[in-house]
Amino acid sequence: MHIRTIAWQRDAVKIIDQTKLPQRLEYLYIKDLKSLWQAIKLMRIRGAPALGAAAALGVYLGIRDSKTKDFKQFKKELEKAISFLGTSRPTARNLFWGLERMHRAATINKDKAIPRIKEILFKEAQKIIEEDRVTCRRIGYYGAKLIKDKDTILTICNAGILATIDYGTALGVVYRAKEEKKRIKVYACETRPMLQGSRLTTWELKKNGIDVTLICDNMAATLMRQGKITKVITGADRIAANGDSANKIGTYNLAVLSRYHKVPFFVAAPASTFDLSIKSGKSIPIEQRSEREVTELFFKLPIAEKNIKVFNPAFDVTDNALITAIITDKGIIRPPYFKNIRKIIKNIFRDTLSFG
Amino acid sequence: MHIRTIAWQRDAVKIIDQTKLPQRLEYLYIKDLKSLWQAIKLMRIRGAPALGAAAALGVYLGIRDSKTKDFKQFKKELEKAISFLGTSRPTARNLFWGLERMHRAATINKDKAIPRIKEILFKEAQKIIEEDRVTCRRIGYYGAKLIKDKDTILTICNAGILATIDYGTALGVVYRAKEEKKRIKVYACETRPMLQGSRLTTWELKKNGIDVTLICDNMAATLMRQGKITKVITGADRIAANGDSANKIGTYNLAVLSRYHKVPFFVAAPASTFDLSIKSGKSIPIEQRSEREVTELFFKLPIAEKNIKVFNPAFDVTDNALITAIITDKGIIRPPYFKNIRKIIKNIFRDTLSFG
Repeated sequence: MHIRTIAWQRDAVKIIDQTKLPQRLEYLYIKDLKSLWQAIKLMRIRGAPALGAAAALGVYLGIRDSKTKDFKQFKKELEKAISFLGTSRPTARNLFWGLERMHRAATINKDKAIPRIKEILFKEAQKIIEEDRVTCRRIGYYGAKLIKDKDTILTICNAGILATIDYGTALGVVYRAKEEKKRIKVYACETRPMLQGSRLTTWELKKNGIDVTLICDNMAATLMRQGKITKVITGADRIAANGDSANKIGTYNLAVLSRYHKVPFFVAAPASTFDLSIKSGKSIPIEQRSEREVTELFFKLPIAEKNIKVFNPAFDVTDNALITAIITDKGIIRPPYFKNIRKIIKNIFRDTLSFG
Repeated sequence: MHIRTIAWQRDAVKIIDQTKLPQRLEYLYIKDLKSLWQAIKLMRIRGAPALGAAAALGVYLGIRDSKTKDFKQFKKELEKAISFLGTSRPTARNLFWGLERMHRAATINKDKAIPRIKEILFKEAQKIIEEDRVTCRRIGYYGAKLIKDKDTILTICNAGILATIDYGTALGVVYRAKEEKKRIKVYACETRPMLQGSRLTTWELKKNGIDVTLICDNMAATLMRQGKITKVITGADRIAANGDSANKIGTYNLAVLSRYHKVPFFVAAPASTFDLSIKSGKSIPIEQRSEREVTELFFKLPIAEKNIKVFNPAFDVTDNALITAIITDKGIIRPPYFKNIRKIIKNIFRDTLSFG
């Protein structure tokens, strides 16, 4: 399958409209900042790594028509676009990482002419996209070392091609294992309320020839009890300095079940998902989303009593103690996380600074 | 709210069509055995205790037009109806209990004239309905002793009015606690795939003035982690001699989460849910239902990739070790279950034999 979740084409940000899958593979061409913000908010584009790339291109959309020749004024416009994009989805660290990289690329080059800075920003966004492709393959490479022939892997939400540019994090591990001729099966949690598992994960795994079985989220415990799951692998939206990991709601649920059933539980994420400024998961901001995601299906079909109270956090936080290992593009991180994450993440900050 | 889930009216079995809730409160008048079987299979009527009553009335529908005057022939027709109803939903013990009671009522009275036996069977079914009302109130009475003022109770599926005749098992405990002026809150798991929680539990709790909040099944772990749940109470479809309890898929999930978060986990069920012929949960038959329940919503709206493999067990089994206590109409049963269940259930068989 040769698709790219995000690309620059026809002078616009080309994305797959993920709210239309699996019924239709439909592309959107987004030409302005506000439309991009909406596409993120409405989850037409989603997945932490993809949000980093989309946000970077969004910054470019935000400043490309700037008329100013003065850097101070340009920086104001740039920061306005960055702040605006930052309000779209608070939990995904990669989104802010993408925005910060764009900001840095501009300020490092502040002495250059504005048209030149615009060029630099466009290239920086392109670089983020190209790097993501490499990053995901590195995650796959390291992660596949953990996978044995005939493993049966449980995953939640979509941490695949559609959550990145074209390979995935948790599912990148699956794709790589398959390339290595390991025979694996995947169980996909449907992932209420937005059903990324049933709509997106089954779609891309099937297209890529992976043996996949769909379950409702509440069936995972039974599968584990029957000994049918040998590993759980999920993505992450933000990982604190101590390894506590925010990911799609339901992930913490799976981590507790994994512990009880003695199933190894892995998180797969690029270095850009780590947030060393946050000591533990307690401080990770958790996005609360519309009640209608739960009471109606796709804002169309009512499935619950009207005017009922709803609790709808988009993410939960898994304690580091429940995580067997974190699979990153820099290698596999094992406990003690506070120490071992810092070792790898320091290197990454050095890497990051060399961009721009 | 003065509704009855099942009643005999207009020479027919009157049921609420639960597939229409919460949009419409619609009644069905069922006049023949096959239609009743279908109503059970399609979950127009559901809930273990309600199935016991529905099945009993179904047996009456099956034999009321019998032309025979010979008991041997009548018994054949009766057993055909009973076998047929038994194929509708294999897990709910109460359904078979209802069928067995009807069978016993006929055989005990085999020397009477067929029209008289028909009358006796009709009365037996009515008795099951009336007894259920008392039974649920007894469960509520015992269960409410466990509830403290300001408790926040998590439940799954619907073990309320709509799962019984007019009071509920797990929700009967909630209703009773409210009658005792205890201030309680309920969180209802939506209960994929058939959404009994969002469609039925929120509907009846709201109508009865209970403070209820709807969550997706995968959000329960987060609520517990935040200390928001003080007790979990669920119904049961079949309880083995050792206390292992089959209930709606997702219940075992909640039991594991409860153990991890040190939240007491209670099962509420009438004596008719116990199956002493089954030593442990391993032997409880688990109904597998259509893939389309998971891949389409209400067989209308597709929500997943087409032709995907699906695992869709309707029930799971919770180990007795995870159950704090079982709330029955005969009192609260605590571990060790094998011993303590037998004490109470023996009495029940004596009770049961006095009917008929």
